[in-house]
Amino acid sequence: MCQLLGMNCNTPTDITFSFEGFRRRAGLTDCHTDGFGIAFFEGKGVRIFRDNRPGASSPMADLVSQYRIKSYNVIAHIRKATRGEINLENTHPFIREIWGENWVFAHNGTVENLSICPNNHYQPIGTTDSEIAFCCIAAKLKERFPQKPSEKEIFDAVVEITSKIAEHGVFNFILSNGHWMIARCSTNLHYVCRKAPFGTALRDDDVMIDFRDYTCETDKVTIITTQPLTKNESWTKMKNGGYVFFKEGDVLFEIEGTLPECKPHV
Amino acid sequence: MCQLLGMNCNTPTDITFSFEGFRRRAGLTDCHTDGFGIAFFEGKGVRIFRDNRPGASSPMADLVSQYRIKSYNVIAHIRKATRGEINLENTHPFIREIWGENWVFAHNGTVENLSICPNNHYQPIGTTDSEIAFCCIAAKLKERFPQKPSEKEIFDAVVEITSKIAEHGVFNFILSNGHWMIARCSTNLHYVCRKAPFGTALRDDDVMIDFRDYTCETDKVTIITTQPLTKNESWTKMKNGGYVFFKEGDVLFEIEGTLPECKPHV
Repeated sequence: MCQLLGMNCNTPTDITFSFEGFRRRAGLTDCHTDGFGIAFFEGKGVRIFRDNRPGASSPMADLVSQYRIKSYNVIAHIRKATRGEINLENTHPFIREIWGENWVFAHNGTVENLSICPNNHYQPIGTTDSEIAFCCIAAKLKERFPQKPSEKEIFDAVVEITSKIAEHGVFNFILSNGHWMIARCSTNLHYVCRKAPFGTALRDDDVMIDFRDYTCETDKVTIITTQPLTKNESWTKMKNGGYVFFKEGDVLFEIEGTLPECKPHV
Repeated sequence: MCQLLGMNCNTPTDITFSFEGFRRRAGLTDCHTDGFGIAFFEGKGVRIFRDNRPGASSPMADLVSQYRIKSYNVIAHIRKATRGEINLENTHPFIREIWGENWVFAHNGTVENLSICPNNHYQPIGTTDSEIAFCCIAAKLKERFPQKPSEKEIFDAVVEITSKIAEHGVFNFILSNGHWMIARCSTNLHYVCRKAPFGTALRDDDVMIDFRDYTCETDKVTIITTQPLTKNESWTKMKNGGYVFFKEGDVLFEIEGTLPECKPHV
């Protein structure tokens, strides 16, 4: 399986502290060594860095850590391949243009027997179940709304479309258009909203940060991840079938999961 | 105006020698300082590096030079903004998925009064005339061929669609799906096909390379660029209305331009 990391904020934020802990799981503290990818939104544009080498040792990941790009929305993924070869086109996050926006998607889990019609406008480039799922979401949204609807309508439609896809397996995902971020949980997804009063955080590899050195009173920074990255913060564990729509570091819409606990097919 | 650089080969090739000469025009030897971008195909995947800082001094461009990525198909662009703000979403090359492939496009020139229907499936993310033109090409191809046609049919359709767009202004472009590369000229586009017997090349900043140190007998490497990058090679200058379809370093299809010489609108 893979691991996900997302960040949604109301101020451009450097994700390095979280990303450094996260990427250690790609070869050092865990075995998600089949590639990594990270997408930073910048205005309506997006920078994506991907590598089919392990995140812990990839020179591309070193660059990301050194570059300290500040962004409102970031999605990262470390891969333990279950479907599809280890190559660049199978490396998350995936990207498509929808309604003149960049949409970025990363998935943890496996969805079985999903198929896509060859006439579907969005076609997968690689061979992962995850990219097929993303193309289904994109196509169904565009079919339902030829032009961009409200955020609430997008959230409701994403919930409806992806609840059906989730019947095919384990479907934890993070999705963003650079303005908001939607998180969906089957098995494991946690989030923490950091805001004033800021304190310190202790990463699971015992690196400490004092957020007071980097933040101002009004900042809100939400981190979403498969497994909590810090030991002393209060992470919310999402439930199976749960969805959260984050905007500017806040929870805007939420559906608490009510499905029975979902076991990963590992 | 901007400048274009393309490479199409039959063996994975490091573009550094050409890219280093090219990026010097983005701030050192010329004034194309409003951003740069470069896309490397890798299998069906693509790595794109873009920066809204000048190519000559961008740390992202430094990384590209150091990284020495080998690829069969590369498209690079340095920008002198004429339409659209200087930001990431307006930085070439642009990318869209067509028929389950990554298609990459970069344009030099300005096309006036192009518009796109809001129901068009491909919508521009930024505000450049170039991205609108690319979305028009993509949408018309998908409309005409719901599924991927032959390479010759693609070439003929691209010629027909883009000849109409070119009536709106100056339309030099390079387009690739990772297997082939199409170059179209209005004002300035040159190419050179490097193959055995290999010799030396002298870049316009007087850096010399001996290709015999890097190549084998069967290698074919075509470089396409706005202005020749070397002083001692025989570059073919394309004519207004000319198109070339390159595959594995060879010219596969060609239309010699026959339109009167096109003057840039500068």
